[in-house]
Amino acid sequence: MAVTNHKFLLAARPVGMPKRSDWTYLEEPVGEPKEGQFLVQVLYISLDPAMRGWMNEGRSYVPPVGIGELMRALGVGIVKASRHPRFAVGDHVSGQFGVQEYALSDGQKVMKIDPKAAPLPKYLSALGMVGMTAYFGLLDTGQPKPGETVVVSAAAGAVGSLVGQIAKIQNCRAVGIAGGAAKCRYVIDDLGFDAAIDYKSEDVRASLRKHSPDGIHVYFDNVGGTILEAALANLARGARIVICGAISQYNSGSVTGPRNYMSLLVNRASMKGMLSFDYADRFTQAGAQMAAWMAAGKLKSREHIVEGLATFPETLLKLFTGENDGKLMLKVG
Amino acid sequence: MAVTNHKFLLAARPVGMPKRSDWTYLEEPVGEPKEGQFLVQVLYISLDPAMRGWMNEGRSYVPPVGIGELMRALGVGIVKASRHPRFAVGDHVSGQFGVQEYALSDGQKVMKIDPKAAPLPKYLSALGMVGMTAYFGLLDTGQPKPGETVVVSAAAGAVGSLVGQIAKIQNCRAVGIAGGAAKCRYVIDDLGFDAAIDYKSEDVRASLRKHSPDGIHVYFDNVGGTILEAALANLARGARIVICGAISQYNSGSVTGPRNYMSLLVNRASMKGMLSFDYADRFTQAGAQMAAWMAAGKLKSREHIVEGLATFPETLLKLFTGENDGKLMLKVG
Repeated sequence: MAVTNHKFLLAARPVGMPKRSDWTYLEEPVGEPKEGQFLVQVLYISLDPAMRGWMNEGRSYVPPVGIGELMRALGVGIVKASRHPRFAVGDHVSGQFGVQEYALSDGQKVMKIDPKAAPLPKYLSALGMVGMTAYFGLLDTGQPKPGETVVVSAAAGAVGSLVGQIAKIQNCRAVGIAGGAAKCRYVIDDLGFDAAIDYKSEDVRASLRKHSPDGIHVYFDNVGGTILEAALANLARGARIVICGAISQYNSGSVTGPRNYMSLLVNRASMKGMLSFDYADRFTQAGAQMAAWMAAGKLKSREHIVEGLATFPETLLKLFTGENDGKLMLKVG
Repeated sequence: MAVTNHKFLLAARPVGMPKRSDWTYLEEPVGEPKEGQFLVQVLYISLDPAMRGWMNEGRSYVPPVGIGELMRALGVGIVKASRHPRFAVGDHVSGQFGVQEYALSDGQKVMKIDPKAAPLPKYLSALGMVGMTAYFGLLDTGQPKPGETVVVSAAAGAVGSLVGQIAKIQNCRAVGIAGGAAKCRYVIDDLGFDAAIDYKSEDVRASLRKHSPDGIHVYFDNVGGTILEAALANLARGARIVICGAISQYNSGSVTGPRNYMSLLVNRASMKGMLSFDYADRFTQAGAQMAAWMAAGKLKSREHIVEGLATFPETLLKLFTGENDGKLMLKVG
């Protein structure tokens, strides 16, 4: 096993957008699995907005990545060596393998995946955490009812594109907010949303009023900031806001809270945070449902795949500039 | 019926704190009830933080009070003349009679009250809307479970004082936030809260951490601003925030949204607005429960009664300066 691993460690806590100098790129020999371990060759690495939060100091839903530690990331790969009873050489797996080419694992929170059932990248998008976030965030937290209007921000993004499509499957009206004409066209023409709002060229508050004449029943928020405020300004009575992310705020030094949050009182509405991994005991069932919808042509996902581990620092930034088209990931090795 | 009525009309939309010049004080003869109407002599007028919102232009849960219109207010009074089948001379009633000495009513949303069961002012505090707000806001929206920590702001105020006492009745820990040592002592010694935090002399965020070592399970917010942020910074997993008011923000030109609202995501917590009158069909049942708790000595309310309709403009301001001790109301006539 004279193989070399490359990996990215967090070198410094970024201020604003993460820079090259916030990372250490390291080359090292790959270790041998001990009893109860196996070695994974990572094939795809998931790049997610949540990574920005993991780089910050302070209490969150998971501990921050420490300075000098391997950067946390989800990935899919193939088992290359094993001294673990449940994982054999040749098995395909998904798990939290980090931003590196090879990972040693004890199997905790690692799932076997079937590359014949779906292409590997799908296991980092619709059939992975992203899919679970859309599924449970919309259905469990948002509780959409047929005929209601569901609005989602970052609608062309990994989670947002699935949220709108699941809303359509539930017989809701789906309205997406996205940046630029191309993303808006994609959301309507390819994904079947009823309407799309280009936040770069439109007054989002006025357009939401136009496209949600009875008010917004469910707002699935991935962005925060002024778009969250525009949604709050257009709630229907009893509306549910799902707080999934706030990508517009992650690189700003000071977060702007929603100044019109008292709309929650006026409309007897709620705003609730959710994290997909709270639903781990229902992943299998939800994954089967998502796969069935995909097979039936009702659910599409688009992956934006960039080649090469070494591009990680720059590729990650695409999430924050909005340059990615669909679920962003690295193809490794 | 050669009686004279005095009343306050809204003369201008206030900027910041309402001033004398925002009101018109009018004297006029009292009209005779027409068929289906009755005349109420108003005895007590409820002064509430919500009044400040009603003075503003713009969409809310009720239309704003128009310029030149009678200022909206809840009150209790006695029927002096009647051509209404359900209300007789001598009946005591509560309803939305406005800031005036005499009101003509068609009986809509007017309830008969029993002055022998409780003193009249109680029907504007624990047995009125204030009581219903505390009852349904805490129990229905907050969903406290025995052993949980319930935190309430404006804890010495009309709603807050009841919220903490109902929390204790539910076998929760009750922590109050109030302004000044006297109010804090009142909350602990007279109302039986477990702890009180003086926001004028303490670091609220740090004190909340001390008094809620397992985090806050239910936060009942009457104030907004930095105190809401301090609560968000100390949530337990799955916490419920009840949005009842934001008195710290009502007279400020620009509202500050809670900058750390993403704590809702980290803690899978919710923030939900409530309005008591949505529960009108359960008022009778809740009122009976509140009255029973009062009779059993488990629930106290304090009324701050100022004499004289003419003092209305200045008395109202006590709500925003925190000068009132308990439910603020005017004694009229």
